[in-house]
Amino acid sequence: MKFRIIHKSTSGKARVGEIETAHGSFKTPVFMPVGTQGSVKAVSPDDLLDADVEIILANTYHLYLRPGHKIIENLGGLHQFMNWHGPILTDSGGFQVYSLSKLRSITERGVTFQSHIDGSKHLIGPEEAMEIQKALGADIIMAFDECAPYPSDYEYVLNSVRLTTLWSRRCLEYKTNDAQALFGIVQGGMYNDLREMSARELVRMDFDGYALGGLSVGEDRETRSRVINESRDFLPEHKPIYLMGVGTPEDLIESVMLGIDMFDCVMPTRNARNGTLFTKKGKLAIKNSRYINDHRPVDEHCQCYTCSNYSRAYLRHLFMSRELLSYRLNTIHNIYYYTHLMEEIRQAILKDNFSDYRKNFYEFQTGENISG
Amino acid sequence: MKFRIIHKSTSGKARVGEIETAHGSFKTPVFMPVGTQGSVKAVSPDDLLDADVEIILANTYHLYLRPGHKIIENLGGLHQFMNWHGPILTDSGGFQVYSLSKLRSITERGVTFQSHIDGSKHLIGPEEAMEIQKALGADIIMAFDECAPYPSDYEYVLNSVRLTTLWSRRCLEYKTNDAQALFGIVQGGMYNDLREMSARELVRMDFDGYALGGLSVGEDRETRSRVINESRDFLPEHKPIYLMGVGTPEDLIESVMLGIDMFDCVMPTRNARNGTLFTKKGKLAIKNSRYINDHRPVDEHCQCYTCSNYSRAYLRHLFMSRELLSYRLNTIHNIYYYTHLMEEIRQAILKDNFSDYRKNFYEFQTGENISG
Repeated sequence: MKFRIIHKSTSGKARVGEIETAHGSFKTPVFMPVGTQGSVKAVSPDDLLDADVEIILANTYHLYLRPGHKIIENLGGLHQFMNWHGPILTDSGGFQVYSLSKLRSITERGVTFQSHIDGSKHLIGPEEAMEIQKALGADIIMAFDECAPYPSDYEYVLNSVRLTTLWSRRCLEYKTNDAQALFGIVQGGMYNDLREMSARELVRMDFDGYALGGLSVGEDRETRSRVINESRDFLPEHKPIYLMGVGTPEDLIESVMLGIDMFDCVMPTRNARNGTLFTKKGKLAIKNSRYINDHRPVDEHCQCYTCSNYSRAYLRHLFMSRELLSYRLNTIHNIYYYTHLMEEIRQAILKDNFSDYRKNFYEFQTGENISG
Repeated sequence: MKFRIIHKSTSGKARVGEIETAHGSFKTPVFMPVGTQGSVKAVSPDDLLDADVEIILANTYHLYLRPGHKIIENLGGLHQFMNWHGPILTDSGGFQVYSLSKLRSITERGVTFQSHIDGSKHLIGPEEAMEIQKALGADIIMAFDECAPYPSDYEYVLNSVRLTTLWSRRCLEYKTNDAQALFGIVQGGMYNDLREMSARELVRMDFDGYALGGLSVGEDRETRSRVINESRDFLPEHKPIYLMGVGTPEDLIESVMLGIDMFDCVMPTRNARNGTLFTKKGKLAIKNSRYINDHRPVDEHCQCYTCSNYSRAYLRHLFMSRELLSYRLNTIHNIYYYTHLMEEIRQAILKDNFSDYRKNFYEFQTGENISG
């Protein structure tokens, strides 16, 4: 993997870069739609390409449990399996072990947990996380971390940082495949000195990139911004920085300003399935009865497949009638909104007017259930 | 609407024809996928075009109740509303009033029933059925009929034929729009003399085409074949004949042989969502564990989008994981199977070897859960 910075903002930490992987390159800051089980929910790989998606994320934990990483490896790896031939990032499974599984016990060896699907017992440690991710064959893989719940006391988070450092070193030692870039994950909860400790320890090991983990777990926005801002300063300029699991369009804009290069979040896809659509003017709840006769597209500024072909009235009808096409058309729109938000952000940084762009973005927002 | 016969089978009643409508023409025998609520479940109009679909069916009863025919009319009609610009046929609502609604009472005026969605009370008679279908704007519309339950005694079915004749005449009298072809629906249950009566009365009124209704309601296959065969003889050669709500691939082949030109059925789409896929060798239940490692497409003879891009192993994984993409990919395959079955049937008739084709079709079938 190669990362180069194309342009740094003259004010603030925002920058535009390019990452080259074994399956193609993409510009940063970038948003990665989430394909948890080897499918970005409700859409096909062709829909993703049409929406200008360049990289997607898949979840190690889910694919390990079903269908199993060995099966995917035997079928030619995840790219081949799911028919997505662009870059893929897989997470390490650490966050899902924390958020989805039951009865876990954590030792230096790894985490023992019960499957959320059938209750079967499993152990994933750093070696297993690397073995699984090697079998899946993603272009960017993540070191196995321990994500502390929020809130957690200082002692718990200190131990979580200690484990994350230990496990990250073992991931680096296990890694043998140069076609896969390996990122370390900074933990440390909301404690600045622990974030610093975690970041410094990982940076000494020289990962291909660094992620900020343990955020978007319930903390308020101000706390999150503080942690991002402070953590960022302990990480090298010349490596890509990935903020995991964040977030809203506003989160993306604010985090790019703090120097973040990569994002993933279920927000565009999950909101789409709930009938919440993103537009330049704000969020639109498609089930609202005001749209029953509305011949206009979701967003008159949008060029996506959905906005080019379907009215709000039809999308409302599909949603109210629980037609499966509803989920796909809504998801296409929301993903397109996110990829084009990132494209606009990159253009603004390149033209050195990102702070103007940010101001305009907020001025355009007129609130929920917009009518035009 | 224009119908011309291109070629008649030298043995049997099968024929190839062409129907020209206000939204384009298509060859017969034809299969129409069902878009009940203004969407063929799980797929988009582009998916239908890619699967070589030429005409779809939509349900008057459903669209009347939600979103309402006036709303669709105000939005430019059903073609515009759902972004399908090819031919559409709408049924009359008669069958759904019989199969879906509660507490109906039938008089010469029409049928009073309660909505299956919200329990609200409605009256649909022949005039309403025509008004609704005029507002929807389909290319082929159906006269309002009374579909007798099965089994029904002779007296009930006699009255049902009497009502259907009365209502069909009122539909013809109401009709003013020449861009919409109007088909009459033959009723008469499983009684040959009542089928004859119904057919003769409708033929005297000179509809643009004739449908056989009241079949696929629980009767056995032999009874159905008998009724189709006998009814067909009372209907004119030079008009298209449409067998409503039928059926399996075998049903289509057998019915084409009896002189049927048009079909609709939820079978390919509903089966797709249940994970049952059609292949040249028979039905394949994608959830079967034998496919967990199977890199082959569903059907190695199939050129559809699904078979061109995805393995049985991936389709099984999507289905087991309840991913929405599963329903779309399965539906695309099954619809393609049906459209290409019809294309093969037409080619066989044109080459005068339909009976060989039919024999080969059955010889290829090796039963469920095929492995290769």
